[in-house]
Amino acid sequence: MLLSELAARFGLTLKGGDKEIDGVNVLEKAGPSELSFFINPRYAHLLDSTEAGAVLVGEAHAALVPTALVSANVYLDLARLVSVFAKPKGDFSGISELAFVHDQAEVSDRATVYPFAYIGARCVLGPGVVVFPGCYVGEDCVLGEDCLLYPNVVLMSGTRLGRNVIIQPGAVIGGDGFGFAQGPAGHVKIPQVGVVEIGDDVEIGANSAVDRASLDVTRIGPGTKMDNLVQVAHNVRVGANCLLIAQCGIAGSSRLGDNVVVAGQAGIKDNVTLGDNVMVAAQAGVGKDLADGSLVGGTPAMEHMVFLKSSAALSRLPELIRRVGRLEKEIERLSGTAADGEEHG
Amino acid sequence: MLLSELAARFGLTLKGGDKEIDGVNVLEKAGPSELSFFINPRYAHLLDSTEAGAVLVGEAHAALVPTALVSANVYLDLARLVSVFAKPKGDFSGISELAFVHDQAEVSDRATVYPFAYIGARCVLGPGVVVFPGCYVGEDCVLGEDCLLYPNVVLMSGTRLGRNVIIQPGAVIGGDGFGFAQGPAGHVKIPQVGVVEIGDDVEIGANSAVDRASLDVTRIGPGTKMDNLVQVAHNVRVGANCLLIAQCGIAGSSRLGDNVVVAGQAGIKDNVTLGDNVMVAAQAGVGKDLADGSLVGGTPAMEHMVFLKSSAALSRLPELIRRVGRLEKEIERLSGTAADGEEHG
Amino acid sequence: MLLSELAARFGLTLKGGDKEIDGVNVLEKAGPSELSFFINPRYAHLLDSTEAGAVLVGEAHAALVPTALVSANVYLDLARLVSVFAKPKGDFSGISELAFVHDQAEVSDRATVYPFAYIGARCVLGPGVVVFPGCYVGEDCVLGEDCLLYPNVVLMSGTRLGRNVIIQPGAVIGGDGFGFAQGPAGHVKIPQVGVVEIGDDVEIGANSAVDRASLDVTRIGPGTKMDNLVQVAHNVRVGANCLLIAQCGIAGSSRLGDNVVVAGQAGIKDNVTLGDNVMVAAQAGVGKDLADGSLVGGTPAMEHMVFLKSSAALSRLPELIRRVGRLEKEIERLSGTAADGEEHG
Repeated sequence: MLLSELAARFGLTLKGGDKEIDGVNVLEKAGPSELSFFINPRYAHLLDSTEAGAVLVGEAHAALVPTALVSANVYLDLARLVSVFAKPKGDFSGISELAFVHDQAEVSDRATVYPFAYIGARCVLGPGVVVFPGCYVGEDCVLGEDCLLYPNVVLMSGTRLGRNVIIQPGAVIGGDGFGFAQGPAGHVKIPQVGVVEIGDDVEIGANSAVDRASLDVTRIGPGTKMDNLVQVAHNVRVGANCLLIAQCGIAGSSRLGDNVVVAGQAGIKDNVTLGDNVMVAAQAGVGKDLADGSLVGGTPAMEHMVFLKSSAALSRLPELIRRVGRLEKEIERLSGTAADGEEHG
Repeated sequence: MLLSELAARFGLTLKGGDKEIDGVNVLEKAGPSELSFFINPRYAHLLDSTEAGAVLVGEAHAALVPTALVSANVYLDLARLVSVFAKPKGDFSGISELAFVHDQAEVSDRATVYPFAYIGARCVLGPGVVVFPGCYVGEDCVLGEDCLLYPNVVLMSGTRLGRNVIIQPGAVIGGDGFGFAQGPAGHVKIPQVGVVEIGDDVEIGANSAVDRASLDVTRIGPGTKMDNLVQVAHNVRVGANCLLIAQCGIAGSSRLGDNVVVAGQAGIKDNVTLGDNVMVAAQAGVGKDLADGSLVGGTPAMEHMVFLKSSAALSRLPELIRRVGRLEKEIERLSGTAADGEEHG
Repeated sequence: MLLSELAARFGLTLKGGDKEIDGVNVLEKAGPSELSFFINPRYAHLLDSTEAGAVLVGEAHAALVPTALVSANVYLDLARLVSVFAKPKGDFSGISELAFVHDQAEVSDRATVYPFAYIGARCVLGPGVVVFPGCYVGEDCVLGEDCLLYPNVVLMSGTRLGRNVIIQPGAVIGGDGFGFAQGPAGHVKIPQVGVVEIGDDVEIGANSAVDRASLDVTRIGPGTKMDNLVQVAHNVRVGANCLLIAQCGIAGSSRLGDNVVVAGQAGIKDNVTLGDNVMVAAQAGVGKDLADGSLVGGTPAMEHMVFLKSSAALSRLPELIRRVGRLEKEIERLSGTAADGEEHG
């Protein structure tokens, strides 16, 4: 496709001569027929040596390259440009005879079901849905248009997906929540009879888990993106456009507002409420409700800046203890009185 | 089913008029033919607006609702009542012709094997066992009565399950432990030839992993419940009725007593021993043996109350350092002597 | 096999009488025809009661047992000896008629493909490759000689494995990286069109995830061993002979040198570089570049010894705050002046 066509399609400014482009690649690897991109000034030196046919840049950097597509939002236009050249993964289409599709399932004739996928009774698969091998779609599930289940995804019974939901391989939606009552002879399972509802444009990462509610619904709001190995427990409600980064976990019945970011390996306790636009730093542990716009870190979580200063100060603590001990001796000497030794532990 | 029948069956007291009940739901959603429940006083306001036909409550709250089942253990009776109305997940029965069942496997005629499940040589599947699609049951596995393997569960060779074990989707039992010797040319795999044994009434969460022992056995005691994405390494022994919450990990050869609770994202080092009734707080890191009944938090883990006080105090540390600096100057001034500056780092 | 044969084969010294050995087991369980091993002096008391026919020991302990194979590297020789007796897991061979193998896939006639495995277009499977049930091998994947994919492993399109790569059940290689641009209406997916390359002799643990690069390549170096539930994000480069322990995570575009050890539940931020021989302690959080040979712990990570001392000191902080308060009062009294109360927070 011509640079000029790409420019026209996405409202970009073409700087330099027009040429045919057949892909997108990083600066180090792009060839003369490929487009590359430049965002991080740290890599400015690569602009000198790149063989890329053209570079997508912001206005501030347009002068650095001879042939450029100039953008007001480089990341966003990169997403669009890569989409032009991206091949879908997988090359099967139609309903495989090696799949199991229940008689009572309702599968669009524009859906794809790979070999070894299982589609249960009363499921509804909209047009454009693709179900890869090894997926299990339990009874009474609903998959909106263009949903994409990569291999070995499990949707247990009653799961409802909006449109354009992407689920990476191995993710499990609708497994039982972790609910047990204490009986005289040990833990007694509370059957988990609720469901999971997932909004439009959600993406869920590889080997993540979203549990069904005990009685009601576990909900992931539209536009929310979950990374790999994330845990969402029963009855949780996640708002719209949140980002849940790899290996974080949200415990039972907690609520997240819209645009919340939970960074990698962070944990949210059960039954807490996080407002909109909350950001939780990596590995933080949140045990209390957080107001809109909070930015927290540490375990238990505190204001992020306080956490950074406090944890930086931590390495000075052993020496501080010695300094306080010296001060106490000085004071004793100065005041000529004996301090109470037993409190100096 | 009539409220009076439910009351009689579970030893509950019926308060108010009898009626037909066809399900259990949360207070906000329950309709006139549904039972709801009330435990947390925080939600007392919902009792005014609920349309539930009846409410399961403890004695202390019986006066708050017109029609009630009054219980001495609301959680436990909730578990029982939900069970009455819960449908099993999945609706297939029998041995599918689309499954692979080895000639030498011994499968009860009262077991269910879904399409695309693989049952290896010399396996024994007891009556009531259900194996969902995509499960792999390696050679020489034994599954006791009523075991339930949800989709895409993997039992590697030699795994033994007691009765009534429930394994949520995607869990892997009996993968190789992480054991390598250091050779001159790098890491050399120590073949993992032990097995995994899982006791009666154990539940294992979605996408969790329990590794086979190097030579001997990795064991999960009866009644223990594991949440999603939990890691249990080779040679670990977990006692009875433990709770291992989501994303926690137990490293190699460690031992947990009975009734141990390891909260979410906590980690237990290899080769440590935790006594009975130990509780490990969320995100804690345990590096040492713990006596019966210990309650610990933090990394490295300390007594939980000490951890809470210490970590709360942490935010005051930067200011404390400034205060100590001021004190040192005051002392210098008072004593008229110069303190040793280099130690004030 | 005779002890003398084992000794000759691995360059060990036989102490005591020769005998036939048919397996390896732990000291507590080994019988008269089994070999056991002794490494940890903590278990020396087991040498008195063991019924093992012979014990593999280091020179220092040879005197403790009547019949021994004496080794200069007990762990390494244990690995070799166990290998002699280990049976491979799984007993199928050949290409199953119940598998799906694309017409355009190139599968060695010395490879094994189990039922319900899916092999996509243009894949190349070398001799000795074994693909267990439920695996998905997307189009254009290359698997070198003797690669072993345990059940339900997913290799998305374009994944390249060297020789002798072992992937434990449920691991996902080549899922989409977590890349989104911020658009006016929310997060916009940046298509992930790069690949994953995995070197010779790598092992990847159960339910781990290695994401494909955005445009380029995510690479795991030869000889590196990953444990269960590990997350490796897009564009990461891991060097040779690293150990990534269970539940750790490496965020996008970070680089690890050779022989790096990342312990359990530790996290590495995106875009950082760790030199060779770095060791990251369990649950640590690394946010900055680390020089060769660094040993760090804590979040944010600091020198490990400093972390240990600082976190040990943390429990004394509440008392330290009180001590400083007392000192301030003493000083006030001594100097007869009022300190500035508002700073004492």
